[in-house]
Amino acid sequence: MRITVLAGGIGAARFLTGLRTLGHNITVIGNNGDDVTMYGLRICPDLDTVMYTLGGGISAERGWGREDETFRVRDDIGAYVAASGTDDLPSWFGLGDLDLATHLVRAHWLAEGLPLSTVTARLCARWETGVRLMPSTDDPVETHVTLADGERVHFQEWWVRLHASVPANAIELFGAADAQPAPGVVDAIADADVVLLPPSNPVVSVGTILAIKGIREAVVATAAPVVGVSPIIGGAPVRGMADACLAAIGVETSAYAVARHYGDLLDGWLVDESDKADADRLAGDGLAARAVPLWMSDIDATARIADAALTLAADVRK
Amino acid sequence: MRITVLAGGIGAARFLTGLRTLGHNITVIGNNGDDVTMYGLRICPDLDTVMYTLGGGISAERGWGREDETFRVRDDIGAYVAASGTDDLPSWFGLGDLDLATHLVRAHWLAEGLPLSTVTARLCARWETGVRLMPSTDDPVETHVTLADGERVHFQEWWVRLHASVPANAIELFGAADAQPAPGVVDAIADADVVLLPPSNPVVSVGTILAIKGIREAVVATAAPVVGVSPIIGGAPVRGMADACLAAIGVETSAYAVARHYGDLLDGWLVDESDKADADRLAGDGLAARAVPLWMSDIDATARIADAALTLAADVRK
Repeated sequence: MRITVLAGGIGAARFLTGLRTLGHNITVIGNNGDDVTMYGLRICPDLDTVMYTLGGGISAERGWGREDETFRVRDDIGAYVAASGTDDLPSWFGLGDLDLATHLVRAHWLAEGLPLSTVTARLCARWETGVRLMPSTDDPVETHVTLADGERVHFQEWWVRLHASVPANAIELFGAADAQPAPGVVDAIADADVVLLPPSNPVVSVGTILAIKGIREAVVATAAPVVGVSPIIGGAPVRGMADACLAAIGVETSAYAVARHYGDLLDGWLVDESDKADADRLAGDGLAARAVPLWMSDIDATARIADAALTLAADVRK
Repeated sequence: MRITVLAGGIGAARFLTGLRTLGHNITVIGNNGDDVTMYGLRICPDLDTVMYTLGGGISAERGWGREDETFRVRDDIGAYVAASGTDDLPSWFGLGDLDLATHLVRAHWLAEGLPLSTVTARLCARWETGVRLMPSTDDPVETHVTLADGERVHFQEWWVRLHASVPANAIELFGAADAQPAPGVVDAIADADVVLLPPSNPVVSVGTILAIKGIREAVVATAAPVVGVSPIIGGAPVRGMADACLAAIGVETSAYAVARHYGDLLDGWLVDESDKADADRLAGDGLAARAVPLWMSDIDATARIADAALTLAADVRK
């Protein structure tokens, strides 16, 4: 079966490790909203998290970045920061030494004029991910967050440096108006047998993929059933600070509200067994929703979630 | 005394450690011919060698790069090189982890639009070099080498990857025609009490500084005596492969021939005591030349060489 997944970072990557065990033909459309240019390098955190996780190179402890990572470069940058007397060197970003190798190779190929989609495929050649990973777009996009005082910061700065502790008034994908879907993205959605939304942040992961002109339309238009897995369990994000993002766009932090936020995109929705009331309410609204255990505690549990999503897809297709 | 030095890499840096002990006001104009863009980063090997050496951060063993260096990033890049099936990733360049911190900070400030001269001053703030270090130019220049078969490669590729083992037909500073001296460079030469050419490669270190429009003219025009220290001892380069560079421009590898190559630029020339015949021959040609021990075996020996250069400068000024 051809399965196309719209993926954010850690949650999606973990979901994919389970999905992959079921042996299908998987295409992953990755989020570029987290992309940031730092120290002259284009960094694509979500693409890398998926690549490292599926390639067995992810830090199991942190969930992002590389296993056996060291931070010698970052620490030495710190000596420049301390001596420079300027505050324009971002020292809050966790730039690991091994991770840097990826950023440098990406920078090299981008500087050669290769599009990000080609660069991503080349990087993945090393990691043998078992999926086809592509960026949502080859064009530069970044998620920007407008803070309460009107200041606009890169999503990464809000998320990593400020830990989303300052309320966001708006979250938008800067560059979306001029961005085209990367080659193959629209076809991967149109030609899929199933489209899955893994338990990723609905605003800054899946939302920023859908913000690329033509991708939302492709998801609405595809003949494939579109099934999502709730990233909210018991009124709280499974991980991360999705509640802060949902608040910024006026959506309640519940499995029910996120499904309603996705609206006509969805043909089916999985919620955790503890959120059965949400599933019942959605069923009342006419959406095929099912409550199953959604904690991705290990690879088997994660595979069962993926399997439940595919089962729901098969059922809604009938 | 205001001393201005036209500096290449290792030889110049070592000379400067000796000169610095004599307690003058030193301005160093660094060579940019070795500069290269790699993995999206602008790398300035000669500026860094001077900065690290005077800042106490140089690898004593290698003479370039950082002390206590590791190569985790480079080795991990190697895994991408191996998997990529392409040969366009330069894996021959010794990109150390600590060294990378410098390149990343430089890239960050360059991307902000700061000129290389400002960036260099900011980087030096950390290292407390005791000199004023400036690039020869803020404009992008690189030394290119034309090989016997007509292929043109970056100097670094010829020097580091090919170990200068392939004869060079021509060596030229690409971009020189459009490059302006960095702010302060011409004044530093005009206003100096002494201008020194340390034992640097006459072709790809000092020659590429002089190739910037206006710098050679400033050295010729300055009222200060211009004294050079021969990088050739006993018909061989003190270090490096300067003979291969001299051959490319049709200059013999001798202390005598290099002085004649510099021509009317020089007011004085130091050769090693073993090259006394060269000094006598130059004196016969009308150039103030002196034979003294030129091996920079330790800081004291190096300081004595610098002192001999200043003494010669004082004598030719009379």
